[in-house]
Amino acid sequence: MKTYAERLQAAVQAKGTPALVGLDPRWEQLPTEIVERARSAATTESEVVARAYEEFCRRIIDIVAGRVPAVKPQAAFFEACGPEGAFALARVIRHARDAGLIVICDAKRGDIGSTAEAYASAYLAGDDPDAAPWAADALTINPYLGVDTLEPFVRTATARGAGLYVLVRTSNPGAGRFQDLTADGQTVYHHVATAMEELAAESAGEGQYGAVGAVVGATYPSELEELRQVMPHVPLLIPGYGSQGGTSADTAAAFDEDGHGALINSSRGIIFAYRREPYAEAFGESQWEAAVDAATRDMIADLAANTPAAALVANK
Amino acid sequence: MKTYAERLQAAVQAKGTPALVGLDPRWEQLPTEIVERARSAATTESEVVARAYEEFCRRIIDIVAGRVPAVKPQAAFFEACGPEGAFALARVIRHARDAGLIVICDAKRGDIGSTAEAYASAYLAGDDPDAAPWAADALTINPYLGVDTLEPFVRTATARGAGLYVLVRTSNPGAGRFQDLTADGQTVYHHVATAMEELAAESAGEGQYGAVGAVVGATYPSELEELRQVMPHVPLLIPGYGSQGGTSADTAAAFDEDGHGALINSSRGIIFAYRREPYAEAFGESQWEAAVDAATRDMIADLAANTPAAALVANK
Repeated sequence: MKTYAERLQAAVQAKGTPALVGLDPRWEQLPTEIVERARSAATTESEVVARAYEEFCRRIIDIVAGRVPAVKPQAAFFEACGPEGAFALARVIRHARDAGLIVICDAKRGDIGSTAEAYASAYLAGDDPDAAPWAADALTINPYLGVDTLEPFVRTATARGAGLYVLVRTSNPGAGRFQDLTADGQTVYHHVATAMEELAAESAGEGQYGAVGAVVGATYPSELEELRQVMPHVPLLIPGYGSQGGTSADTAAAFDEDGHGALINSSRGIIFAYRREPYAEAFGESQWEAAVDAATRDMIADLAANTPAAALVANK
Repeated sequence: MKTYAERLQAAVQAKGTPALVGLDPRWEQLPTEIVERARSAATTESEVVARAYEEFCRRIIDIVAGRVPAVKPQAAFFEACGPEGAFALARVIRHARDAGLIVICDAKRGDIGSTAEAYASAYLAGDDPDAAPWAADALTINPYLGVDTLEPFVRTATARGAGLYVLVRTSNPGAGRFQDLTADGQTVYHHVATAMEELAAESAGEGQYGAVGAVVGATYPSELEELRQVMPHVPLLIPGYGSQGGTSADTAAAFDEDGHGALINSSRGIIFAYRREPYAEAFGESQWEAAVDAATRDMIADLAANTPAAALVANK
């Protein structure tokens, strides 16, 4: 069995980029052709939405699978369509894995003891796609309840060759309300980061990176640099690139010199590129898939030009 | 449309108790008759488990519906059986609502912006059981991402007459690792509590309690007293009674003088009573439902004898 860090590193090196595509299907932004086909094929409103999300995500996966190492489906949008959405999410994850992608399920779970174990067993398939109903390689989780509540996730992840991304510093405007509180001379997010480094170092073995990663927003580059130093064994997941205002240069501090150690996520900027310039004018809705491909290529080129991810291309 | 606080208060007064039954189905503790019937009726392992969880929870609901105001299904155990579990959870919630119970879905969700809205729309049905696929009256949520990430939940809850319980102070052994950090002379959980009081007071209108509640463990009675004072408009959900070591007297500070303001949760102590003394000897597995009923009556009597919930009985 390979560890998550080994599989992630191999996928990033094979594709030559740390670009991560977020699958956040939003009903009101879907291409009309997909909405209409779903309406003609399903009966209840929940089924229509779930079917449209599934087709949209599958087609994006087919476009990006040759270019990027990983995708990140957002569980909330699938759950919003009810149990049919739960089935659709499972099929989307499976389709992405079949396409050779690393799948990070963004579900931000967290609970205590045996309840945490139940979530871990539901989402963390790791190296064996048959090991969990939602067969993700990795899962996002929330640290507020304490390190003991993360340990059941870490045990399952380590046993299955799966990974975790713990919310350390988020990129929303109000993130600082609790994360920036200062205790014993350090912010709360710094305390969380210190604890995550301990967990990651334990699971890293002889490799650089462990099974425990961290979500760190790209909106504050100086914090990213601080957190990279605090967490040398922690693979990072950086949201906020593109739509949320972060630039590729803002993410540079997240990488090691070989271009590993971080995935940079873009969701809307890729999957709904046809609704934004310059892609809206160049392609329009009828060529929304070409817009996805162009936006993906542009993101990859931007990261290669302005971050240590350049080393991945050189070593490819 | 009635608010969550109004509906909760009416249900608590009607039943004369703040006892909340947690529906945490655990495969290895289920009565054999339920496991065997599920095995004979379903094909895949996921279907067997989901079917067994659903029957077990439905039968508990049928037993306790006449005695308690509310139940709290734990989403994680249903998710552990995959998408079939998602359907089972929706049907269990619906069955509880049809039985006149308030349903608090314990899913501990949390995310930013429109993603938070998606979770809220999935779980918060509030006054109208047809308003969401998982038709809960209330949902547990996690505050780490900041107050701005709770606001979409609050908007949906207020619009639908639903409620929220924000994790403020949990009862697990390692809860203090981040929650007890002290910033500006106050613990992190105290800062969270202060913010929750603001949100609850805004949504309370002319009533005592708002739509925003808090989860506060019963394992530290002095903290419970402190938090009750910080959050006078916040309905509390107190885990830790029974199996986790908290006693009824430990919860007394959570209540107002009329016996309102808090729900006291017991999960294993009720639903798996047949596995514990004194119920194991008195009933045994063949009479597991009688054990559930006896444990529920004992909990209600204990709360009436040792907390201000006595006032509910006097006013019944």
